[in-house]
Amino acid sequence: MIAAVEAIARLGAALGGDPAAELAAAALVEADVLGQPRFGIAMLDEWRPDAQPLPKETEPRAVRWVDASACFAPVAVAGATLDLGLAAHQFGVAAVFLRGVRGFGRLAPFVRHLADDGLVGLAGAQSAPFVAPFGGTGPAIGTNPLALAMGTGAERVVIDLATASITIAELRKARAEGTPLPEGAGLDAAGQPTTTAAEVAALLPRDGKAGSLLGLVVELLAGVAGGGRGDPAGRGVFLLAFDPAAAEGDIGWRDRLAALQGDWTGGGGHWPKGGGLPEGATLDAGFAERLDAFLARMA
Amino acid sequence: MIAAVEAIARLGAALGGDPAAELAAAALVEADVLGQPRFGIAMLDEWRPDAQPLPKETEPRAVRWVDASACFAPVAVAGATLDLGLAAHQFGVAAVFLRGVRGFGRLAPFVRHLADDGLVGLAGAQSAPFVAPFGGTGPAIGTNPLALAMGTGAERVVIDLATASITIAELRKARAEGTPLPEGAGLDAAGQPTTTAAEVAALLPRDGKAGSLLGLVVELLAGVAGGGRGDPAGRGVFLLAFDPAAAEGDIGWRDRLAALQGDWTGGGGHWPKGGGLPEGATLDAGFAERLDAFLARMA
Repeated sequence: MIAAVEAIARLGAALGGDPAAELAAAALVEADVLGQPRFGIAMLDEWRPDAQPLPKETEPRAVRWVDASACFAPVAVAGATLDLGLAAHQFGVAAVFLRGVRGFGRLAPFVRHLADDGLVGLAGAQSAPFVAPFGGTGPAIGTNPLALAMGTGAERVVIDLATASITIAELRKARAEGTPLPEGAGLDAAGQPTTTAAEVAALLPRDGKAGSLLGLVVELLAGVAGGGRGDPAGRGVFLLAFDPAAAEGDIGWRDRLAALQGDWTGGGGHWPKGGGLPEGATLDAGFAERLDAFLARMA
Repeated sequence: MIAAVEAIARLGAALGGDPAAELAAAALVEADVLGQPRFGIAMLDEWRPDAQPLPKETEPRAVRWVDASACFAPVAVAGATLDLGLAAHQFGVAAVFLRGVRGFGRLAPFVRHLADDGLVGLAGAQSAPFVAPFGGTGPAIGTNPLALAMGTGAERVVIDLATASITIAELRKARAEGTPLPEGAGLDAAGQPTTTAAEVAALLPRDGKAGSLLGLVVELLAGVAGGGRGDPAGRGVFLLAFDPAAAEGDIGWRDRLAALQGDWTGGGGHWPKGGGLPEGATLDAGFAERLDAFLARMA
């Protein structure tokens, strides 16, 4: 057994010990704590000793396009998040488009970091085509999550919305275990519905047309505007942040957020919090052994 | 009968004759051409002789918050769109949050204008709470459309996605005509499903959880970050634009857009074009009379 905070400290040090390394370590360990090990330290499989830091900007800019293919992806996304926060405070709005990003885990910890910094954080990630358009028969876009975070404390909101019916991780698990998929999740190579994981050639979008068009929005931003689509080195990721403190005069956004939360939960809605590390969280001996093995390889 | 271009020219002149007036006039007349008269020149009902122009910025900024409650809303949104385009070319990314916006019609013509200008345009609008959260029983957010446009010519994409099951205009029409609503569109005051338009106290989100959370994203941006929520003078609207030409080196976004269009339609998807004014479009005598009446009142 190991305390999550200790795992984060050890992994952060192994990744370089700077703030980007620490944010990346926290994001990965959190996924394991939340029971999503395929988005956790399993990402270290892709760590390589020659991984480069994210290219530094020569001057502050409101928007950047960055090739992250030489980087370890979780650290690249974390570094881009930290740079973005500085730019958003300076310009009031800022964006970064990353391309060549390999597996980096969940978006939620990164947009949450922006929220902790007083910003509104938005992010999306595209990946190789495996999701069919609404009403379609073959793959066109990735599973394309969109995330947003703002606020702190009890009013915090963290939305992390996949636009495919199931995740690739869930599909792989069903393939490995031979379990059936839910109805409406997959299509076979002929474009016909199937619940047999081994036959799946495309996933269907989540929740019909809304999920399909939202997935297209993410593809257009992260894949087209960001230049990530079709890059064999990895996926496209965009991050965007606003600073509400840049408004002239107080727009009272924290009070409005609390009021919206009240109306949303009062109307029977679930207020999404997007995970987070519970205080005092621990991980089991199996995790500790896997972490030790990764750290030994990285040393 | 009147040609759409003539209607736009006459209305644009009556609204002030500047580029914002012309864009607003084109947006309204287009809705009538597309058979959506409740988003068309009917908006002129809210025009008042003391309408003010959108406040000018004293210096160029990447992000602005603007109170538009003293403006005629379609001209305010058009003016904000034009200012935003200039800022996006200057900073690479720019955003504007409007509050106190009354009825302004459809978002599509405004984001399309940004696309014509070589930008990626995104916009969303919130309104008074009338849509329940997914799984909920009472209203919490507005009907909250989200729009995105990029590209020109055959590859152009214009997404204009409502996040409620039906529009307020459709609900009003069903109420006026006594026709039933589709199943799953509305809830009564007790939070129970109803298809009787007169009983509807809340609409349901479009397409389940995806539509619900996307509506929440729009509310958080346009209503909370933008300060528009709860303003009795009108709704909150945000507009955001990126300039892909700000990337160092060519990211080839136009080729990537064409390739995505091919994959999307090849996979059986519908490539959304978001309306637009067909060449040589005309409007009937009833429209021409209504326009004349509005113009006479405005003169």
